[in-house]
Amino acid sequence: MSTQIAKDARVASTVLKTLSDQERSAALQAIHDGLKLQKTAILAANVRDMQAALESGVAQALVKRLDLSQGDKFDVMLQGVLDVAKLEDPVGKITLHTQLDDGLDLVRVTCPVGVLLIIFELRPEVIANITALAIKSGNAAILKGGKELLHTFTAMANVVNLVLAATAVPAHAIQLISSRSDVSLLLNEDQYIDLVVPRGLNELVRHIKDNTKIPVLGHADGICSVYVDEDADLEKAARIIVDAKTNYPAGCNAAEQLLVHQAVAAKALPVLGKALVDAGVTLHASAAAKPYLQGVAKVEDASADAFDKEYLSLDITVGVVEDVRAAMAHINLHSSKHTDVIVTENKATAETFLKGVDSAGVYHNCSLRFADGFRYGFGAEVGVLTNKIHARGPVGLEGLVCYQYQMRGNGQVAGDYEGAGGSRVFKHIKL
Amino acid sequence: MSTQIAKDARVASTVLKTLSDQERSAALQAIHDGLKLQKTAILAANVRDMQAALESGVAQALVKRLDLSQGDKFDVMLQGVLDVAKLEDPVGKITLHTQLDDGLDLVRVTCPVGVLLIIFELRPEVIANITALAIKSGNAAILKGGKELLHTFTAMANVVNLVLAATAVPAHAIQLISSRSDVSLLLNEDQYIDLVVPRGLNELVRHIKDNTKIPVLGHADGICSVYVDEDADLEKAARIIVDAKTNYPAGCNAAEQLLVHQAVAAKALPVLGKALVDAGVTLHASAAAKPYLQGVAKVEDASADAFDKEYLSLDITVGVVEDVRAAMAHINLHSSKHTDVIVTENKATAETFLKGVDSAGVYHNCSLRFADGFRYGFGAEVGVLTNKIHARGPVGLEGLVCYQYQMRGNGQVAGDYEGAGGSRVFKHIKL
Repeated sequence: MSTQIAKDARVASTVLKTLSDQERSAALQAIHDGLKLQKTAILAANVRDMQAALESGVAQALVKRLDLSQGDKFDVMLQGVLDVAKLEDPVGKITLHTQLDDGLDLVRVTCPVGVLLIIFELRPEVIANITALAIKSGNAAILKGGKELLHTFTAMANVVNLVLAATAVPAHAIQLISSRSDVSLLLNEDQYIDLVVPRGLNELVRHIKDNTKIPVLGHADGICSVYVDEDADLEKAARIIVDAKTNYPAGCNAAEQLLVHQAVAAKALPVLGKALVDAGVTLHASAAAKPYLQGVAKVEDASADAFDKEYLSLDITVGVVEDVRAAMAHINLHSSKHTDVIVTENKATAETFLKGVDSAGVYHNCSLRFADGFRYGFGAEVGVLTNKIHARGPVGLEGLVCYQYQMRGNGQVAGDYEGAGGSRVFKHIKL
Repeated sequence: MSTQIAKDARVASTVLKTLSDQERSAALQAIHDGLKLQKTAILAANVRDMQAALESGVAQALVKRLDLSQGDKFDVMLQGVLDVAKLEDPVGKITLHTQLDDGLDLVRVTCPVGVLLIIFELRPEVIANITALAIKSGNAAILKGGKELLHTFTAMANVVNLVLAATAVPAHAIQLISSRSDVSLLLNEDQYIDLVVPRGLNELVRHIKDNTKIPVLGHADGICSVYVDEDADLEKAARIIVDAKTNYPAGCNAAEQLLVHQAVAAKALPVLGKALVDAGVTLHASAAAKPYLQGVAKVEDASADAFDKEYLSLDITVGVVEDVRAAMAHINLHSSKHTDVIVTENKATAETFLKGVDSAGVYHNCSLRFADGFRYGFGAEVGVLTNKIHARGPVGLEGLVCYQYQMRGNGQVAGDYEGAGGSRVFKHIKL
C-alpha cells in the first residue's frame, strides 16, 4: 500500500519534471481557483476540526493554529499560491557550461529533487503553500497532515485532486494520506522517496530523523543569540533584543540568548534588562551577568543548561563575554546554527562576526525575526532549516531543486583521451 | 578521545573559514613542497605497506592500488595539489543579493560546510587530493585511511602536520587518525562533524550510512546504462558501448546495462554484441534480446536480478525496450542514478531522454566514462555521488561548500513591518 503510493509518486515525478513552467504554473492557477470556489465548504470542514479539537481537550492556543477563517488567513493562503506561480522557474537553470572538447559539451542544469514526503502538524495553510512549492519546482509530493486537521485536509485534498485532473500535472503528483501508519511505512521507501520535509514541533522532526534513511530537510531547534558589542548603540540594541524576544516568542527565530561584551556590561545590562522586563520578559542571568542586573526585577539564576535552551516563551538567558571572539566561540558552541546577530557600530567587528559565526543566518544590527522566507522575498517557504548541507535558513523553491549534468557529444569515447589510454587533451573551455 | 578530535576540528574550522584564499592556497603550496621534499621517505613507507599487504594475502590487483610509485602517480598527485590551489575560490561567492528595505540588505554567500570526516580505503593519493580540497574550501578534515596504508599514511601525515605549522591554517585543520575504533566513535559526533565522505568499496559506504546521523556524501552503486535508440548511428553506438564497458570495468562509471530499441534490435544487437564479445565481454541477454544474438559467442541468460547488478567486470546485461519512453522508465527504475546515455541521431529524442532521466549524469552520444571530476575540469574530486540532494555526480570543491545568509541593517526590527504587527512594506529589490 505505502509502496504503491511511493511508486505512483515516482512515476508522476518523471512526467512532472518534463513539464514546462507554463504547465506547472497553470496547475497552480487551477488549484487557486478551485480552493477559492470551495471556500465555504473548506471553512465548514475547518470548523468541524476545531470543534473536535476543543472537545478532545486540545489547548486553546493550539486550536487557534488550526483556524483557517481567522482574519484574512484563507485569502492570504490563496494569494500565496498565485505568488509562487509567478516566481521565476527554478528548474532548467544552467549553472555551469564547459566545453570539454570540440563537440563535447557539459552543462549543469537545475532539476527537481524528485519525490517529497511532507509531514505537517497543525497549520492547514501549509497544505496550499507546500503543494504550490512542490508543483512549481517539478516535484511530486506525498502530504500527511495532523489528525486534528482531518476534515479541512480532506476537503482541500478533494479540490486539489479534482482540479489537477484537468491540467498537465499527473494525478499522482500530489497524494494526500491520512493514516499515521502509512507514514511509518513510507519512511522506509528510500528507493522511491528522495526527501522528507517535516513541518512541525521539534519532537516530530527528531522522531522522523531517527526513523528514516531518506534525507530529512527539517530544523530541530531555534536557539538564536543577540550579541551586544562594546561599540553597540544601546538604543538600537534595546529595540533589537525586545523585538527579537517578544515579537513572536514561539517562533524558531526568537532570541533565546543575550550576550554582552564585558567592557560595556555595567552600562548596557541595566538598560537592556529593563527594556526586556518592561516587555514582560524574565531574565535568566549567568553569575557574571547578575551583578549588573541588581536594580532590575524578574531576574533568576541561569540554570546549568541555560545556554542550550529553547524557551519559546518570554524568557531569555543573559551572559557576559570577554570580546567578539569569545562571543563567536560561545555562539558556535551553543547556538543551533539558525540565526545570530551582532549589534555594533564598528563595521570591522561586524564583518569578523559575520565571517566567523557558523549559522545559516548571520545578522548585523537588525532583528532575528527577519529570518523567514516571506521576509526574504521567497514567496513561500518549506521551513527554516538548520542543516549544514543542501539548503539552509529560510528555504523556498531552491531547496526543492538539485542539478543534473547533461553531456552532448557526437560519439566521443574516454579511451581516446589522456588518462584513459589515449592522447587527446581536454580543452575545458568555460562558456 | 574521539570527542576531543572532533572538538579540535570544530575550533580549527571556525578559524579556517575566516582565512583568505591566498592563505588557504599558500598552505597547499607548502604541502606540495613538503611532500615533494619527502618523496623518497614516503615511497619507502609505501613499499613497506605493499610488502605487508602481499604477506598478509591481499590480492595482487588490490595491492596495485596501494602503489604510489607506479608510473607518474606521485608527481600527478603533487600536481593535483597545485591544481586545486589554482582553482577559483569557492568561498565567499555571492549567489543572491536582495534589498529588503532602505539600509536592510540580504546577501547569500558560499561558506565552508565546516568539519569533514573522510574515510578512504586503498588509494594513498586520496590523502593529498582530499586534504587539498578540504583546505581550499575552508573545511577542517579528519582523515582515516585503510590499515593497509598505515606507513604511507603516517609518513604523509607527518609532512602535512609539519608544514601546516608554518602557515595560517590551524594545526588541527587536518587530523589523521589510524584506529578503526576512533571512526566508530567519531560517527556519533554529529554535534561537531558536519559531513562524512567515505571513499571506498560499496560495503564501506553502506556501513557508514547505516551507522551515523551525520549526512554522508557517498555513492553506493554505479549501475549505468547505454540506450541505443532506433535512430542510432551503430558505429558510434559500438564505440561508445565498448569504451563504456571495457575502458575500466571496475570503475563506477562503467556500463552495466545495454538497452536497444526493438525496431532496430535485429540489426543492432548482432553488431553491438559482436563488438563487445570481441573486446572480451560476456553478454547476459534477456529473453527478448537473446534471439538476436544467436550468431554471437559468450551469451548467457540474464538472471532475474540482471538489471539491478553492478558487475564491475567484463559482463553486461542486454535487454530490448519498446521505445525511448520505455527506456527512460526502465532506467529510472533500475539505474543507480549515476550516469546514463542515449545513442541517437534524433535530437528531439535525445532531449526527451536528457530531460526525463533522473540520474546525476544524462549523456547524449558519448561514453559514460567521462563521468569523472578530472574530466569535468574540477581539478580533483571528492567522489562521484548518487545522492539526490546537495551534490551529485562528480563532486569537487562545490560539494564542500554550502551558504549563509548575511543581513546588514541599522537597527530595523520586524515589529515595524507588515505581517509582524507594523505597517512598513518590504521592497525586495534584487541587486
